[in-house]
Amino acid sequence: MGALGDLREYVREIGELHGATALAAWDQRTHMPDKGAEARAKVLGRLERMAFERTISDRMGELLARAEAEAQGASVVDQALVREWKRRYTRYKAVPPDFYQKFVETCTRAEVVWEKAKAASDFPMFRPHLAEVVDMVRELARFIGYKDSPYNALVEEFEPGMTADKLRQVLGGLREELVPFLKELTDRGRPPEPLPPGKFPVESQRALCREALQAIGYDFAAGRLDDSVHPFTIGIGPGDTRVTNRYREDDPLPALFGALHEGGHALYDQGIAPELAWSGLDGGASFGIHESQSRFWENQIGRSLAFWRFFRSKVVRRFRSLAKLTAEDFWRAANHAQPGFIRVDADEVTYNLHICLRFELELDLIEGRLKVEDLPEQWNRAMKDYLGIVPPDDRRGVLQDVHWSGGSFGYFPSYTLGNLYAAQFTHAAIQDIPEFWDLAISSNFTPILSWLREKIHRHGRVYLPEDLARAVTGQGLSPRPFLQYVKEKYRAVYDLA
Amino acid sequence: MGALGDLREYVREIGELHGATALAAWDQRTHMPDKGAEARAKVLGRLERMAFERTISDRMGELLARAEAEAQGASVVDQALVREWKRRYTRYKAVPPDFYQKFVETCTRAEVVWEKAKAASDFPMFRPHLAEVVDMVRELARFIGYKDSPYNALVEEFEPGMTADKLRQVLGGLREELVPFLKELTDRGRPPEPLPPGKFPVESQRALCREALQAIGYDFAAGRLDDSVHPFTIGIGPGDTRVTNRYREDDPLPALFGALHEGGHALYDQGIAPELAWSGLDGGASFGIHESQSRFWENQIGRSLAFWRFFRSKVVRRFRSLAKLTAEDFWRAANHAQPGFIRVDADEVTYNLHICLRFELELDLIEGRLKVEDLPEQWNRAMKDYLGIVPPDDRRGVLQDVHWSGGSFGYFPSYTLGNLYAAQFTHAAIQDIPEFWDLAISSNFTPILSWLREKIHRHGRVYLPEDLARAVTGQGLSPRPFLQYVKEKYRAVYDLA
Repeated sequence: MGALGDLREYVREIGELHGATALAAWDQRTHMPDKGAEARAKVLGRLERMAFERTISDRMGELLARAEAEAQGASVVDQALVREWKRRYTRYKAVPPDFYQKFVETCTRAEVVWEKAKAASDFPMFRPHLAEVVDMVRELARFIGYKDSPYNALVEEFEPGMTADKLRQVLGGLREELVPFLKELTDRGRPPEPLPPGKFPVESQRALCREALQAIGYDFAAGRLDDSVHPFTIGIGPGDTRVTNRYREDDPLPALFGALHEGGHALYDQGIAPELAWSGLDGGASFGIHESQSRFWENQIGRSLAFWRFFRSKVVRRFRSLAKLTAEDFWRAANHAQPGFIRVDADEVTYNLHICLRFELELDLIEGRLKVEDLPEQWNRAMKDYLGIVPPDDRRGVLQDVHWSGGSFGYFPSYTLGNLYAAQFTHAAIQDIPEFWDLAISSNFTPILSWLREKIHRHGRVYLPEDLARAVTGQGLSPRPFLQYVKEKYRAVYDLA
Repeated sequence: MGALGDLREYVREIGELHGATALAAWDQRTHMPDKGAEARAKVLGRLERMAFERTISDRMGELLARAEAEAQGASVVDQALVREWKRRYTRYKAVPPDFYQKFVETCTRAEVVWEKAKAASDFPMFRPHLAEVVDMVRELARFIGYKDSPYNALVEEFEPGMTADKLRQVLGGLREELVPFLKELTDRGRPPEPLPPGKFPVESQRALCREALQAIGYDFAAGRLDDSVHPFTIGIGPGDTRVTNRYREDDPLPALFGALHEGGHALYDQGIAPELAWSGLDGGASFGIHESQSRFWENQIGRSLAFWRFFRSKVVRRFRSLAKLTAEDFWRAANHAQPGFIRVDADEVTYNLHICLRFELELDLIEGRLKVEDLPEQWNRAMKDYLGIVPPDDRRGVLQDVHWSGGSFGYFPSYTLGNLYAAQFTHAAIQDIPEFWDLAISSNFTPILSWLREKIHRHGRVYLPEDLARAVTGQGLSPRPFLQYVKEKYRAVYDLA
């Protein structure tokens, strides 16, 4: 066996350890009895450490050095294999173990305090912990190394190849168009009617979500749907990608769109080529590309009129109180632009503004222009500027998200990248499949899913995100398709056509 | 940290790996989607290999050598820690890795063939595979080393300290009393009425089993009840011991006794002292002692008249068709001695005869007195001698159990040891707690469970099985309490008093 074969064999062990970790994490959030929590945390820590140690081992260094020479002229997959593991090896190796352990401990502590501070809406309680996290993240970036901005070292973890400059340009452009567009909608549009109030039994919602997942092609023989506090998708291994969901008795739409969202993530995983199994290339090209797949099914499909043309009857059959609503009514109710305080509840127009705000603030923090103590004030100022509203307390403002407390700086942009890529992919798919919307109306998603599989899913992490987007759509990241899509749809919903 | 501390730290890693393996095995048999099976088998193999490699590593050898000196004069637990890991290290180290891998592969193949041969009732199909397994098991025993009989090397895995001689004596004595007793029952006794036929919805049975588990003290905050093809109990880690069960729509009793049986195993695990967590001593003292705890709750308690005095109303509330039955009726129906072909369906009188038969045959195979080709004939002869019936085919005869195909020779006696120890423990508990049966009638099992915890559970694997039995009951393994118990109960049920 050559060097590449040795590398493949070695990383398979790491991959299988990750599979065991994923199962333990899934179980922790779905089925684990309460009293198992403490021991589970230890087991998870142990498995992660074992995988980490192998990733930065001397053996890995040797294998990569040998494989690198051999990879020239090898297959695209083998080249990507070396590229991906070299990236991880170099990145993690650069960080002194003692520093990293202290960083993890600091974040764990900060997250515990954040949870309490959020409940009490008490930013000063959280402030010193966040300040410590920000200092350590900046140090982390220095260890990793970067060009131009320390933010580049951080965003690279989530979106290989992405930079602060590029994000500033793309997100800035988006904001400049969305802020006035939101004003146009709220000032001159006719807002859609929400669903009539009612009680929607959880058991029926679960069954409806299963139907939705089946409709878009999620393979229940290679996954399952369970309940959890926060919905998530997790790949346990080849042939096993699980989704979870949560339910509100007073409204069936959040669970339905949650199912389509997680289903989109899961279809990506289920579509990765089997030969990439356990290679480290058996994941999404990036967080942004992964999010594009969830947003594709949740928004581009699920919030389209075509979807409601066939799905209305499935909803109405389970919830008779909605029988009077037409497909158009459902479609309108699902597309309501409403400035709100909470990101996770936001619609397609305002969602990206929540992200612009977070990106700008975290960039200022990481580049040292903003002090943690000034964060709430700047948060509220931006909310006023972008959405025209000011949170009444920090619980519904700067304290709402967990990401920063856990040290995840550079993560937020992924959400907007997902929205933008989803619109780009939809645009390209419609060009390749002219009957796209007719297929959706007849709930025949197979050709659409096949297109995604062929173009995106099967490649896993073989291509860098922008290279993948370029191959599929003919151009790199662009906000234009999204802006065109969102304006067209919302103008129709708001009778501004 | 001294040598003992180093050893504790090192085996904790092995323990945590076992925890991850246990979770993956539980999931495999309860929730895993079909298509995840292949990858799961690999992950399980990987985790097991990692734990195995650590168990026989040079580092383990050094740690044990250092710790052994330190253990003299150390606590009982630390001495047991060294004893237990030295046992594993020595035993596994003695087997050449290549041989062991070939053995595992041979067994895996034999088990696949066994499943087909059983379905087709075709012993000749299975014969060459079983012959190969027997040859390798005999070789395995030679590698491990033994005194007197190669069987001693095998049974030691399941019941430390047990020997072929001792089993021959105990099981032989048991057989000599049970064969004529069974004849007495069938010839002269009045057999009990079975439950009237009916349909018992699975959902109600599940709820009933939960009630039964709660009644005996199973902690659902430290475990869960799920469905599976074969019921089992599995310890995932401290605070997390799970049970599973299966249900037959035409009879609620098998699931109920299944729940009590698995609950008994689980109570043992849930009662192990927390300071033994991940030490390798956090399991049962032996397979036989573990089985004694399941048999205690399933038979000594669950098949007693006292249990039915309080549990009758719980059954009748869910299954109205049984409302006419008295507590005595349920008790009698649950104690029906009926010679049958299938071990797992057997009652308390005939069950041990199934085990005697298997023990005698496997001992003859391992000691080289019996050829695999003569096995079916000898099986059927023993069935005729002990139970008075001859299986109409090998599916219901020599092919019924999976154990031999998997190389598990020396396992079967554990079942009977469990029955005998359960009766010994009950006898001792009644002497210590004179109100034992009054407590059971009022479903106040706390004092009984506390007695088991104090005497047995909390010690985990610290004491060797017979030492534990001696400490609890004043004597080592003995068939007398079981024989007295089973004769007294069955004579009462069969109106032979």
